[in-house]
Amino acid sequence: MLSTMMRTPLTLSHLLERAGRLFPTSEIVTRMPDRSLHRYTYADFYRRARALAEALQKAGMQPGDRVATLSWNTSAHLEAYFGIPVAGGVLHTLNLRLHPTDIAYIINHAEDRFLIVDDVLIKLYEAIKDHINIEKVIVVPLTGQPVPEGLTSYEDFLATATGDFSYPELPEDTAMGMCYTSGTTGKPKGVLYSHRSMVLHSLGSALPDALNLAQSDVLTPVVPMFHVMAWGLPFTGIMVGCTIAMPGPHLDAVNLLDLYESEQVTKTAGVPTIWMGVLQALQKEPTRWKLLPMEMVVGGAAAPEAMIRAYDTFNLKVVHAWGMTEMSPLGTVSRIKHNLADSDPDTLYALRACQGMPMPLVEVRAMNEHGEAPWDGHTMGELEVRGPWVAQSYFNLESERDKWSADGWFRTGDVVTISSEGFVKITDRTKDLIKSGGEWISSLDLENLLMGHPAVREAAVIAVTHPRWDERPLAAIVLKEGATVTTEELRSYLEPKVAKFWIPDAFVFVDEIPRTSTGKFLKMQLRDKFKDWHWE
Amino acid sequence: MLSTMMRTPLTLSHLLERAGRLFPTSEIVTRMPDRSLHRYTYADFYRRARALAEALQKAGMQPGDRVATLSWNTSAHLEAYFGIPVAGGVLHTLNLRLHPTDIAYIINHAEDRFLIVDDVLIKLYEAIKDHINIEKVIVVPLTGQPVPEGLTSYEDFLATATGDFSYPELPEDTAMGMCYTSGTTGKPKGVLYSHRSMVLHSLGSALPDALNLAQSDVLTPVVPMFHVMAWGLPFTGIMVGCTIAMPGPHLDAVNLLDLYESEQVTKTAGVPTIWMGVLQALQKEPTRWKLLPMEMVVGGAAAPEAMIRAYDTFNLKVVHAWGMTEMSPLGTVSRIKHNLADSDPDTLYALRACQGMPMPLVEVRAMNEHGEAPWDGHTMGELEVRGPWVAQSYFNLESERDKWSADGWFRTGDVVTISSEGFVKITDRTKDLIKSGGEWISSLDLENLLMGHPAVREAAVIAVTHPRWDERPLAAIVLKEGATVTTEELRSYLEPKVAKFWIPDAFVFVDEIPRTSTGKFLKMQLRDKFKDWHWE
Repeated sequence: MLSTMMRTPLTLSHLLERAGRLFPTSEIVTRMPDRSLHRYTYADFYRRARALAEALQKAGMQPGDRVATLSWNTSAHLEAYFGIPVAGGVLHTLNLRLHPTDIAYIINHAEDRFLIVDDVLIKLYEAIKDHINIEKVIVVPLTGQPVPEGLTSYEDFLATATGDFSYPELPEDTAMGMCYTSGTTGKPKGVLYSHRSMVLHSLGSALPDALNLAQSDVLTPVVPMFHVMAWGLPFTGIMVGCTIAMPGPHLDAVNLLDLYESEQVTKTAGVPTIWMGVLQALQKEPTRWKLLPMEMVVGGAAAPEAMIRAYDTFNLKVVHAWGMTEMSPLGTVSRIKHNLADSDPDTLYALRACQGMPMPLVEVRAMNEHGEAPWDGHTMGELEVRGPWVAQSYFNLESERDKWSADGWFRTGDVVTISSEGFVKITDRTKDLIKSGGEWISSLDLENLLMGHPAVREAAVIAVTHPRWDERPLAAIVLKEGATVTTEELRSYLEPKVAKFWIPDAFVFVDEIPRTSTGKFLKMQLRDKFKDWHWE
Repeated sequence: MLSTMMRTPLTLSHLLERAGRLFPTSEIVTRMPDRSLHRYTYADFYRRARALAEALQKAGMQPGDRVATLSWNTSAHLEAYFGIPVAGGVLHTLNLRLHPTDIAYIINHAEDRFLIVDDVLIKLYEAIKDHINIEKVIVVPLTGQPVPEGLTSYEDFLATATGDFSYPELPEDTAMGMCYTSGTTGKPKGVLYSHRSMVLHSLGSALPDALNLAQSDVLTPVVPMFHVMAWGLPFTGIMVGCTIAMPGPHLDAVNLLDLYESEQVTKTAGVPTIWMGVLQALQKEPTRWKLLPMEMVVGGAAAPEAMIRAYDTFNLKVVHAWGMTEMSPLGTVSRIKHNLADSDPDTLYALRACQGMPMPLVEVRAMNEHGEAPWDGHTMGELEVRGPWVAQSYFNLESERDKWSADGWFRTGDVVTISSEGFVKITDRTKDLIKSGGEWISSLDLENLLMGHPAVREAAVIAVTHPRWDERPLAAIVLKEGATVTTEELRSYLEPKVAKFWIPDAFVFVDEIPRTSTGKFLKMQLRDKFKDWHWE
């Protein structure tokens, strides 16, 4: 029997209308290229996002047309986040840190028709313009400089709107945006989010046990808006009506801390590399910034437990979350369950360094060669997920079907354990696991332990072929400035903490660990570097 | 263009699986008829809810069959809340406070096939059994006494399950439950909620700016589970995994306060009448109960500002919400926006006594004879709402189409103003507004003001026909025990607070205000009583 409830579609036009009508005085702040702060209200944002929607329609944008952005975290980018999809277009955020060749490949694969680009990134556009076929390029004049000839100024473009925009009726499964994964192997793959998936993701993300976002918050997404839609935070933030303070192109520690202080930020989100830098700045000048107690969501890579502990001393709470481009991206958040709240500090820190509990509507399971792994906290398996904000295929790419199980779950490529109460802990990426004498060794666990050593700044552990054990772990170590440590000391440090066969057979001191554009260790390069390693 | 995200349906089976797998140790506590406390875990709840689902299927329940409940707030009722819908049935909660004739009418109109009834309510069943046609009556043995012959014990029924239940695949628009409105006029009308609407309502309700419900909370729904699904709290609570403490049949102030103290309750919800009683008990014995700071959601009728102020002195925060049976029920919640947080205390209390801001996905507008009323905080209009958890028709009832506007909004019957930032304030019910000399007078505003007078316990203001002004207000006053006040004193008390023509022409002292079964003033009876009133 069908119910008699309204079948109101879940679309972003509802969130935009809500923002404009309920929160007209809430503020959106952007750090501009010259470091000044640009401020305006949700009323301005609402007017301009709708103007963009109308201007795009007038420029001939058809339902489903892709409109690419090549932009930092700014209020103009936020306008594109809403203006494009509410007009029926598909917001395609381009990762400006990729190689120009890859950016051009992605634009062509997505068949982008329009491009919005920050003027400070115009050189990047010029590097690719001969390899792409974009009908109209719109330049956001962040610096106030004139826009290059032949291109359209974003402000002139908005001025073509008359203000009489009305939302097209969109079924909730309509595509609203797309992101390409910047994986370490293979060609970039596009994920096509829907209005429905993004509205549900926003509701789920704002929950008290997820990111806990309220109208009274001041939110700074440090995670770039060209990286999995800044983890959906622009949508979640606008939905709840909170103040949004954007870092623009200035992601260095001092600029971020200045922004946190001047805007009295309460919630922020970014990758561990960024938080590592902010922590060092704080430790160097512990009294320089007057900050509110702030929650710092960390994701994109595992945050070392030592970092979580260090931030606690500044009354800043690191909240570990886990997700993927294919998941909009949030899948799990590590908040302590109340029945574990009285555990000893070490247990609590260990839990906080886990990936945490699945959000409502997200289902998880761990699969290994025996089928579904029991939820016992120690049996490893590949994490598979299912839910209304998880991708069921890539855009125009039939060759990657093995990323989904036969029964339709998305295979994340992360190797995890799941506790009896559903706490997920990533032990490794499937491709980074080390198989020694038939047993699995978690490179991630070793890295996190090593990064807890006072002399170690970064550690990456990889598998290297071994004549007797198939594979053995090798640890690449970056020392803190001025610190020294011997291989023997690191060995003794690990001994009481892990099984004996886990201890790396070699420790190599390096200047830096190669990283992807989104801050993840690029272990492929390391493996390549050490592929001819001779064990003693 | 369609997105490539999974089209996972929003169904209650996901919430039940989540509860059983992620929160097995969370507790559900029930005050039994003998006042003892029954405790079990989510693991028990999960097992028993699934057993009920399986037993119903084995007993021949077909998809869409209605299963009625006649029950207090207990863990067994919670099992029915999930066990019935996840098996494809429709949970039909019966209001046990209605007249038996009405209950029988509702059962017959809904064509209920099964009935689950608390043993302490068996007399109510016996009063209606000859007027209804129920195939199987299942009795919950709350007292432990043997079940009457011919009826099935709930425990025996659960024991028919073997544990190998698997969820039927249900489209998200499948009906999951139904409630009949207990309006003051006309026949009861059924609303048929869907899995989708209830899942969305649960997500919306748990948000920080709505009920702010987390896993660490201890939740006591005082609002009965036979009254608009206890405002959806059983679903929201189970979704977040919080501890749930149920009052059973004991809704008196002392039993509630004992429960709040023993279970360390952090969130509770009920109607103003209940909170009035609890407040009196607290004021009588202010040091008797050691309570945590607690949020007390109030809805179902307007809470007087004086009550909100009084609770603040006990560190208990009354949160005003507004909804309707036709809205699942939550529509607005009154939390102070951060830009108003620095207002003076009187302004803040006035705001907190409003109905508040629409929740995400709920749209509001106020309509009067000129069309849509401006959002200016003073122009009145009838509140109309739209959203994915709002009904678009009644069950099997074609005669009530005028409850929806031509363009599909639900007409609430509440007269409101909406502020420039979307804050909704109910000024009256359309049928209770007083029209004096062409001007509208809000009976609700007068009642709230009068209930702020130290001698007044309750006040109801109604329109009485007047030869010159069409209608004039008459106030029915219930005094506090031992208090006295004169008509002149009440007049002078109101004078500085309202326009002169608003002041009631008559004050009548009565012993009590007649009420509906859900605690609302039954003004129809008052109007009837005073219909021949002679103005001096």
